[in-house]
Amino acid sequence: MTFDQRTPKPTLVSLARQVGVSRQTVSNVINNPEVVKPGTREKVLAAIRASGYRPSAIGRALRTRRSMNLGHRLFPVADGINGAIMDRFLHSLSEEAQGRGFRVNLLTVEDDLHEVETLTDLHQGLSIDGAVLTHTYAGDPRPDRLEASGVPTVAWGRPWGKEDTGTWVDVDGGAGTEEATLHLRSLGHTRIGFLGWQRPNNVGEDRCNGWLRGVAGLGCEDLLIESTDGLYEGAQGAKELLARGATALVCASDSLGLGALTAYRQQAIPTGPSIPVIGFDDTPVARAAGMSSVAQPVEACSRQLVSMITTQLQGMPLENSHVILKPTLVLRNLQSFAR
Amino acid sequence: MTFDQRTPKPTLVSLARQVGVSRQTVSNVINNPEVVKPGTREKVLAAIRASGYRPSAIGRALRTRRSMNLGHRLFPVADGINGAIMDRFLHSLSEEAQGRGFRVNLLTVEDDLHEVETLTDLHQGLSIDGAVLTHTYAGDPRPDRLEASGVPTVAWGRPWGKEDTGTWVDVDGGAGTEEATLHLRSLGHTRIGFLGWQRPNNVGEDRCNGWLRGVAGLGCEDLLIESTDGLYEGAQGAKELLARGATALVCASDSLGLGALTAYRQQAIPTGPSIPVIGFDDTPVARAAGMSSVAQPVEACSRQLVSMITTQLQGMPLENSHVILKPTLVLRNLQSFAR
Repeated sequence: MTFDQRTPKPTLVSLARQVGVSRQTVSNVINNPEVVKPGTREKVLAAIRASGYRPSAIGRALRTRRSMNLGHRLFPVADGINGAIMDRFLHSLSEEAQGRGFRVNLLTVEDDLHEVETLTDLHQGLSIDGAVLTHTYAGDPRPDRLEASGVPTVAWGRPWGKEDTGTWVDVDGGAGTEEATLHLRSLGHTRIGFLGWQRPNNVGEDRCNGWLRGVAGLGCEDLLIESTDGLYEGAQGAKELLARGATALVCASDSLGLGALTAYRQQAIPTGPSIPVIGFDDTPVARAAGMSSVAQPVEACSRQLVSMITTQLQGMPLENSHVILKPTLVLRNLQSFAR
Repeated sequence: MTFDQRTPKPTLVSLARQVGVSRQTVSNVINNPEVVKPGTREKVLAAIRASGYRPSAIGRALRTRRSMNLGHRLFPVADGINGAIMDRFLHSLSEEAQGRGFRVNLLTVEDDLHEVETLTDLHQGLSIDGAVLTHTYAGDPRPDRLEASGVPTVAWGRPWGKEDTGTWVDVDGGAGTEEATLHLRSLGHTRIGFLGWQRPNNVGEDRCNGWLRGVAGLGCEDLLIESTDGLYEGAQGAKELLARGATALVCASDSLGLGALTAYRQQAIPTGPSIPVIGFDDTPVARAAGMSSVAQPVEACSRQLVSMITTQLQGMPLENSHVILKPTLVLRNLQSFAR
C-alpha cells in the first residue's frame, strides 16, 4: 500500500470484514504476528496475499514506531580461514531475524565510538529498532553507551569482566579447548602444547585457560606460545613447541592449527593415522584438510540473540539475559587431500 | 527528531536561518547531499550536528519516499577460501553505500524467485529503494522481473547471453586467466593446463576461454580438467594433469590452486624457487600460502555499483549501464610457511 489513494485498495477494515476478524487482529498479524493464534494468522495472511495488500513500511513505522531493522556492524575480513565464522554468523543472524520479520541493516564504521554514534542516530531516526554487537572485550564501552542512549542491544560475546551486565550470548571457548586437551590426553599424550593469541585478548585467554585445566598435573606450562593469528605463525609456533618436546597441540584457531600441521609434515614426525593437532572454529578449511576442531554453535547463538532482542522490543521480560552455549569437539582423521 | 513535539527542537527553518541558507538547501543536505556544494554542505552539517537535530527516517521517507536502504541477498557461505571474495564484496558494498548515505539491508532467501518476491515486497513497502544482485547466470530471471516490478536494480555480474540488458558491473575473468597463462608461457612453459569448474558455469567458462586464448598454438587442449570446486578436487585434477605432461597450471579458483600445490609437493617435482600454479581471486589464503593469483577489483566494482544505483535513484541518466573491469595478476614466490 502506498500513500497514493486514487485507486481503491484493500484496507485493514476490508480485510478484517472479509476474514471475519477485528481490524486490530489484521493489524496485529502485520505488526505483532506473535500475539495472534497461528490458525487465525494463516487465514489473515492468505487474505492479505490474495488481496495484493502491501503494508507500507512507513505506515507501519508511524503506527508502531518500528522499522523492523536491526543494526549490525560488519567488521573487516580477518583472513580467509577465521573470517568464515563471522560469515556464518552474519548469515544465520540474517536468517533468524528474517524468520521473525526483521532484517539486518549493515554498518561499516571505523571504530567503536562511531559504531555507537551511528547506531544511536539510526535508532533515534527510527531506521533501526535495536543493535546486535560482536567482538566484545574487557572495557568495551559500547553496551553501556547504547543502553544509556536507549538503544535495545544484544551482543554475541560477553562483556568480559562485567558478565552480570548487558544482554548477551557467548560460547564457552574454554570448555572447548579443555575437551580437546582431555581428548589428546586420552590418546596417551602427556606433552600437550597450546598455540594461542597474543594478549590482551579475552577470547584467547579463555581458550588458553581451558587448555591449562586440561593439562592440569602434567607440567606442560612450558608448552605455551602466544602469537598473532595466521598460518605462518602456527607453523613457526608448532616447530618451537615440537622442539620443546610437545607431541600434541591444541590451537586457538584453525589458522594456527593448519599452520601447525605443516610443521609436523616438514619434520616427518611419525604420528600414526592422524596428526594430533586440534584447531578451533571448525571452518570449511579445517573440514577440507581433515583437521579436528572445536565447533561453535553459531546458528544457535544467532537464534538466541534474535529471540532476546525481539522479546525486548515487545517489552517482555527476558528469562535469562546472559547465555553461554557449549561448543562441540569435531574429530577427524586427516583422510583428505593433504596426506 | 521524533514526532514528540512537546519540547522545542531545531527545525529545517531554524537551521537554515542559523547558517544563512534556504530551507531547501538544508533539506537537500539531508536528503540529496550530492546536489549541494561541498563547502555549504559542511557548514550545514556542522550546524545540524551542533544542534542535536536528528532527521527522522520516517519523516524523510514520507517526504522523499526513500528509505535509504539497498536490498541485498546474502548467499550461503561457499567454503572458507572462495567465500572470502563475497565477504570482501559485502564489506565494500556496505562501505560505499554508507558513503552516499545508504545502508545495505540483508535478505536470506531460499531461491531466486523468493529473492525477487521479497525485494519487490520490500520496495513496494518503501523498506528499500533498490536492489543489488550477485551470482548472475545465463537465463537468470531476476533482472527482468525486478525491472518489470519497478525495482531499481544493479548486478555484480553480467546477465550472460543478454549483456546488452540491465545495469551491471563485472570483471573480465577471461582476461585474467589469459594474462596468467601468458605469464607462464613467458617463463618457458609450453604444457600449461587448466583446472576449471564443471559446466554449465558462465564464470568458469569465461575463465577457461581466457586460458584457451593464452595457450593458442601450443596444442594444450588435452590439459583441461573441470570439476566441482575444492582443495581435494584441485589436488586430484593437478595429479592427473601432471601425469598428462603439464608443467604449469592456471586455476579457476584459489581452492583448486591450493589443492594443486599439494600435488606438486607430493610428487616432489623440481620447480625452482616457485611452483608454477596460478589461482584466482587472490584470497587471504593464497596470500598466506604465497601462491600467485588473479585479483578482482572488488572495491572498484562496489564503488561503481553504488554510483550506478544512486544515479538511477536520482532519476539521472547513466553514462554506461554495462561496465567491465580488468583484474590484476599478482605474482608471488611461495616465500612462505608452506615451503
